Amino acid sequence: MGSIKSVITATGSYLPEQIVANEDFLQHLFLQKDGLAVPGTTQRNIEKFQQITGIRQRRYANTEQNASDLAFLAAKDLLDSGDIDPESLDYIILAHNFGDVCFGSNRIDILPSLASRVKCQLEINNPNCIAYDLVFGCPGWLQGLIQADYYIRSGDARRCLIIGTETLSRVTDKHDRDSMIYADGAGAVLVEAVANSQRGIISHQAQTHAGAYTMLLSMNKSYNTADTNKDAFIKMNGRALYEFAISNVPQLVRQMLDKAGVHITEIKKVLIHQANEKMDQVIMERLFKLYGIGSFPADIMPMIIQSLGNSSVATIPTLLDQIYKNKLAHHSFEAGDKIVFTSVGAGMNINALLYQF
Amino acid sequence: MGSIKSVITATGSYLPEQIVANEDFLQHLFLQKDGLAVPGTTQRNIEKFQQITGIRQRRYANTEQNASDLAFLAAKDLLDSGDIDPESLDYIILAHNFGDVCFGSNRIDILPSLASRVKCQLEINNPNCIAYDLVFGCPGWLQGLIQADYYIRSGDARRCLIIGTETLSRVTDKHDRDSMIYADGAGAVLVEAVANSQRGIISHQAQTHAGAYTMLLSMNKSYNTADTNKDAFIKMNGRALYEFAISNVPQLVRQMLDKAGVHITEIKKVLIHQANEKMDQVIMERLFKLYGIGSFPADIMPMIIQSLGNSSVATIPTLLDQIYKNKLAHHSFEAGDKIVFTSVGAGMNINALLYQF
Repeated sequence: MGSIKSVITATGSYLPEQIVANEDFLQHLFLQKDGLAVPGTTQRNIEKFQQITGIRQRRYANTEQNASDLAFLAAKDLLDSGDIDPESLDYIILAHNFGDVCFGSNRIDILPSLASRVKCQLEINNPNCIAYDLVFGCPGWLQGLIQADYYIRSGDARRCLIIGTETLSRVTDKHDRDSMIYADGAGAVLVEAVANSQRGIISHQAQTHAGAYTMLLSMNKSYNTADTNKDAFIKMNGRALYEFAISNVPQLVRQMLDKAGVHITEIKKVLIHQANEKMDQVIMERLFKLYGIGSFPADIMPMIIQSLGNSSVATIPTLLDQIYKNKLAHHSFEAGDKIVFTSVGAGMNINALLYQF
Repeated sequence: MGSIKSVITATGSYLPEQIVANEDFLQHLFLQKDGLAVPGTTQRNIEKFQQITGIRQRRYANTEQNASDLAFLAAKDLLDSGDIDPESLDYIILAHNFGDVCFGSNRIDILPSLASRVKCQLEINNPNCIAYDLVFGCPGWLQGLIQADYYIRSGDARRCLIIGTETLSRVTDKHDRDSMIYADGAGAVLVEAVANSQRGIISHQAQTHAGAYTMLLSMNKSYNTADTNKDAFIKMNGRALYEFAISNVPQLVRQMLDKAGVHITEIKKVLIHQANEKMDQVIMERLFKLYGIGSFPADIMPMIIQSLGNSSVATIPTLLDQIYKNKLAHHSFEAGDKIVFTSVGAGMNINALLYQF
């Protein structure tokens, strides 16, 4: 037990205003990788999509907003709600996978880092507030939290702001059914150094599975073979990704808990990356099966994917913010609660973290 | 004095094959920001450029190579030269500012992270080797080394590979004189946990100056106003950047050395980001002036910018590799030598690190 722990003292998020329902995709022409039409009516394909992913609607950023703007708004929400002096931050760690993509540009822009842009928008003058971006797939935000824990436990940092932001709507191929999965959003958390505390980060672990898994999520051209420009879109090998996630995430969570000497039955909540409802449920089933437990408690896995879709690095901090601020029905954190964060995504990367409130 | 130190045990680099001399720019039409021709002949402008920056030639990647390929080749060089088992790596930390940009695409691609792609190319199976990308301007590689030092000193990591890679040639505007500055390249370092060692990383410090400095380096359209597409290129406010660097870098280096209780006269080498020869010389002059010393030792600042240009995150690890392997005339590291690494770039970010061989 180290003497300094990283304790969550504030959360924030920004939900883009534009609500896009599944019905809004009815006029889309969904194509397969080979350019041929997806069999079945679009109506039926949307219904199947909703059954599997649980997604009914998602949010898109307004055309004048970029990912760094969403990040700023999430950070502002956090700073205002916690009455935090921005000048007191030692780090701004910003996770994303697509940087700023101006509406209609199909160009990713990461110069300067989005973290610098957010620091500028927050009007922070303190040069010792170090701002950098982290690219680690959907688990990027959680990895930022893990990195902050190292800085805090070393004694070099006292306050770290970790933001996840993404405008996936700017890199989706409208001819790809998977485009319905993706959403825009941003979430943020503040962790602070607290000495001799029961509360705080207890344990964490991360993995990168490269090899055959490296390109399960990657950029590629539109399924519309008539598109002859160089535009690139997020493309997913959904089936292989699903198999990868349900096989590997439960294992890593158990390893991480074993390292801390904590049993799954001690866990109050699992805040899992909102990737796909069915996949998340299977991951949870398999996690409990690793302990010989046939079913998992109904309220252990709060979900917001139904109304917010999959906003990559933003899903977990947004979920955390909603529960932290008692905005999500039937879910709350009580003192002493042990919760698990876990994520999986491009890389393929997986991580898990144990936190005690 | 911590019990575990981060010790450099191997270095590597990759110099792209294509050599581009200043004369190769003679046919370029250099324009100003307003689209009007730069006054003076191109010949004369190239001569002035060489006088200030010191750059005579630079390297460009072959058209089929991307930044992740250069990174792989630098990592391979390191692993081969040090006879290192790639499976023993705990981290691959990869710094860049433009990801992979396929020749002629003008699209930045960071999905999956370049670190994952390099891990895949190195055929590393160990899932516990965590691979992520870091965006922190030109100081990104040095910041990766700083981050590795936290992982190593915590006891969680024993071997970290830190790579800097960039293909700036893919994001330069050929109508901008500054395009002559930029180069492609990759460099890598391996640091390992060593207990009770005199050798290793002693101290480091980093800063992000946002506010008015945030956009001194950013992406923007070509100076050729006839270009009506959405292509985006690296653009620099050279004068403001120069003033910023010479004012702030010496201060930070001194602060970092003071923290370690080390005087500038104890330093054998300063490995500075190869940004611009004149600027680097003024930074060094001002650093010594902070100690009341009127001139700096002739051999303290090894330079490779003359033949390799400014390859952003790749300059310092490439320079380190050349000296480490005794490939740079008149420069070597001896046991006990204290050296300073320092960099400045987009963000604006600055960092400095003290290392003892």
